Amino acid sequence: MPAVLGTSRLEAFSDGVIAIIITIMVLELDVPHATTLSALTPLVPVFASYILSFIYIGIYWSNHHHMLHVTPRVEGGVLWANLHLLFWLSLVPFVTAWMGENHFAAAPLATYGFVLLMAGIAYVILQQRIIAIQGEDSLLARAIGPDLKGKLSPILYIIAIPTAFVSRWISGAIYVIVALTWLVPDRRIERALAAQEL
Amino acid sequence: MPAVLGTSRLEAFSDGVIAIIITIMVLELDVPHATTLSALTPLVPVFASYILSFIYIGIYWSNHHHMLHVTPRVEGGVLWANLHLLFWLSLVPFVTAWMGENHFAAAPLATYGFVLLMAGIAYVILQQRIIAIQGEDSLLARAIGPDLKGKLSPILYIIAIPTAFVSRWISGAIYVIVALTWLVPDRRIERALAAQEL
Amino acid sequence: MPAVLGTSRLEAFSDGVIAIIITIMVLELDVPHATTLSALTPLVPVFASYILSFIYIGIYWSNHHHMLHVTPRVEGGVLWANLHLLFWLSLVPFVTAWMGENHFAAAPLATYGFVLLMAGIAYVILQQRIIAIQGEDSLLARAIGPDLKGKLSPILYIIAIPTAFVSRWISGAIYVIVALTWLVPDRRIERALAAQEL
Amino acid sequence: MPAVLGTSRLEAFSDGVIAIIITIMVLELDVPHATTLSALTPLVPVFASYILSFIYIGIYWSNHHHMLHVTPRVEGGVLWANLHLLFWLSLVPFVTAWMGENHFAAAPLATYGFVLLMAGIAYVILQQRIIAIQGEDSLLARAIGPDLKGKLSPILYIIAIPTAFVSRWISGAIYVIVALTWLVPDRRIERALAAQEL
Repeated sequence: MPAVLGTSRLEAFSDGVIAIIITIMVLELDVPHATTLSALTPLVPVFASYILSFIYIGIYWSNHHHMLHVTPRVEGGVLWANLHLLFWLSLVPFVTAWMGENHFAAAPLATYGFVLLMAGIAYVILQQRIIAIQGEDSLLARAIGPDLKGKLSPILYIIAIPTAFVSRWISGAIYVIVALTWLVPDRRIERALAAQEL
Repeated sequence: MPAVLGTSRLEAFSDGVIAIIITIMVLELDVPHATTLSALTPLVPVFASYILSFIYIGIYWSNHHHMLHVTPRVEGGVLWANLHLLFWLSLVPFVTAWMGENHFAAAPLATYGFVLLMAGIAYVILQQRIIAIQGEDSLLARAIGPDLKGKLSPILYIIAIPTAFVSRWISGAIYVIVALTWLVPDRRIERALAAQEL
Repeated sequence: MPAVLGTSRLEAFSDGVIAIIITIMVLELDVPHATTLSALTPLVPVFASYILSFIYIGIYWSNHHHMLHVTPRVEGGVLWANLHLLFWLSLVPFVTAWMGENHFAAAPLATYGFVLLMAGIAYVILQQRIIAIQGEDSLLARAIGPDLKGKLSPILYIIAIPTAFVSRWISGAIYVIVALTWLVPDRRIERALAAQEL
Repeated sequence: MPAVLGTSRLEAFSDGVIAIIITIMVLELDVPHATTLSALTPLVPVFASYILSFIYIGIYWSNHHHMLHVTPRVEGGVLWANLHLLFWLSLVPFVTAWMGENHFAAAPLATYGFVLLMAGIAYVILQQRIIAIQGEDSLLARAIGPDLKGKLSPILYIIAIPTAFVSRWISGAIYVIVALTWLVPDRRIERALAAQEL
C-alpha cells in the first residue's frame, strides 16, 4: 500500500484553489454606474449570496485545515479525492452568482444545493480515504467519531433541493442552518488533540 | 482551551487571498481602445484609487505578517477571526473600482471608508483573539502596547465617512493620512523582538 | 554544474499558477439570465470541456507533485523548463473555452490537442532536465523507467489533432483515453519509494 | 537595526502575486467566436505580447527566487521594497494587453517600456536594501558584483521608450534583447554558492 507523500503540497495547492474560489466570487459584484448609496440596493441579493458562500467556503477550508493537521501522510488516491472536492467547490462561484443575480429563484437555489451536496459528499469521501490509510484507531478516526453532522448535512441538502421549488424561504433557511451547524466544526479534532496531550 | 494549530497554513491561506485581492484590482484598469498617451488620462482616478488600495492591502499584509510572526499557535476561533478580516478586505477591489470609476464621488468614497473601517475593526478583533490565547504578558501584547494607532484609525474613518458628503478632498485626505501613519507599522513588533534578544 | 536551489519555492510557485489555471476556467461558465434548469442546457458542452481540462490539469499537478517529491534539488535550467511547462498549461483555459463554446468544433478541438501536445513535450523536457541533474541511477530515473506512457501520449495527440477535422468524436475520444491512462500516474514513483524503504 | 523576519512568507506572498500576474494575462486572449484556425490570426500580436511578458515575469520570478535564496532575513523596509516591485509588475498585464491589442502601437509600446523601467528600478532598490542588511561582504553582494546587467537594462529601456515613437521595430527589439540577456540570470548566484561550497 503506497502512502508516501507528505501533506504540505496538498495543503498548499488546496489553499491556493480555495483562496481563488473565495476571492473571485467578489468579481460578480458588478460595480454600479450610479454614485448614490441606493445604487447598492440591487446588489443586496448578490451580496447576501456572496456572504453565504464565503462562509461555506470558509467552513470547508477550516475543516480541511483541521483534518489535514492530523494527517501525517497521503497517497495518490487522496490527491484525487481532494481534487474531486476542489472541483465541486470550484462551481460554487458560478451557482452563487446565478442564485444572487436572480434573487434566489427556485432553479438556481436548487442547483446551489446540489453543488453543496456534491461538495459535502466529496468531503466525506476524502475523509474516508484518509482514515483508510491511517486506520480506524487513528486520531482522526476517533475525532470524527460517528460523524453525525457529516451524515446529517447531505440529508438536509436533499430536503432543501426540492423544497426550493415549493418555498424559497424554507430552502434558503436550510442552507443557512447547515452553515451555522458547521461554524464551530473543529472542536472534535482540537478536543481529540488536547486529550492526547494529557 | 484548545490552541493546537500551527500558523503556517493560516499564513499561507491569507497570503493567497491577499495576493489575489491586491492583483485583481488591476483588472479594473480597462485597456483603452485609443493608442495615444492621452487615452490614459481618463484612467487617472482609477489608477489613483488603485495605488491607495494597493498601499492599504500592503499595510494589512505587512502587519498581518508581523503579528503572525510572533504568534506560535492558533485555534479555530482565530481562523474565523482571520476569515472575517479577509472578508472585508475582499470587498476592497469592489469599492476601489466604484470610487475610481466615479472620480471619488461622495457615496463611493463613504462606502470605501466603511469597508476600511470594518477591516480595521476585524483586524483589532483578530489581534485580541490572538492575545487572548497568548496572554497579556506575551511578546505580541507588549509590542502592541496601548495601541494608539489601532484606536485612532477607526475614529478617523468614522470622521471621514460623513465628511465624504461635505468635502471629498478632506475625506480622501483622511484616508491618505491614515495610510501614511501605518506605512511604518511594524517597528513595534521588531523593536520588541530586538529587546527580547538582548 | 550548479545545482543549488531547493524545490520548495518551485513547487509553491507551480502550485499557485496551476491553482489559478484550474480555477479561472470556471469563469468561462457564463451565468445564465434565465432562471429555469433548462437554462443550463446550453452550458453542457462548456461544462464538459471544463471537466476534461480540470482532469488534465489535475493530472499535471499530481504528476508534478510526485516528480518533485523525489527531486532533492534544482538549478536555473529546471526553473525555466518548469516555466515552459506552465506557459503551455496557461493556454489550457483559452483553448478549453474556445472548444466548449463552439461545441467541440474541428479547429478548436485540434488546437486543444496542440496545446496538450506541447504541454506533454514540456513535461518530458522538465523530467529529462531533472534526471540529468540527478543521474540515470536516481530514484526518479528508475521510477520513470522506459516511460512508455510518456512516449505514447504525444503520439496519440499527434493522431488526434488531424483526426479532429475528420471525426470530432474519435478525436475527442482520444483526449479522454489519454486522460484516463494518466489518472493513476503515480504508482511508479510510489512503488519505487516503497521498494527503497524495504 | 531591526532585521528579524524570515523570508518564507515574503517568498510565498511574492510567489502568489507573481503567479496571478503571469496567469491573468492569458485572460486577455479573447476567445474567438469563429471556429476556423484563421480566427486565431488576429490574436497573433496579443499572443506575441503575452509571450514577451510571460518571459519577463518569469525572469523576475527566477531572479527573485535566486536573490531570496541567499537572503537569510529581512525587515519591514524590505517588505515594502518588495511590495513596490510587485506594484510595477502588477501593471504588466495592463500594458501587455494595451500593446498587444493595438499591434504594438507607439504609445502602448513606450508605456510598456516605462513599466519595465520602473520594475527594473524597483528590483535594484530591493536588492540594495537586502544587501544593506547583509553587508557588502555577503554572498549576495559578491554574487551581484558590479552588476553590469542591472545597470545596463534601465539605460536600454530609457533608449527604447522614445524610440517607440520613431521605430516600433527597434523599440520592440530592445525589449526582446534585454529579456534575452536576462534569460540566464542566475549563474552569478549559483556560481557564488558553488564557490563557497569548495
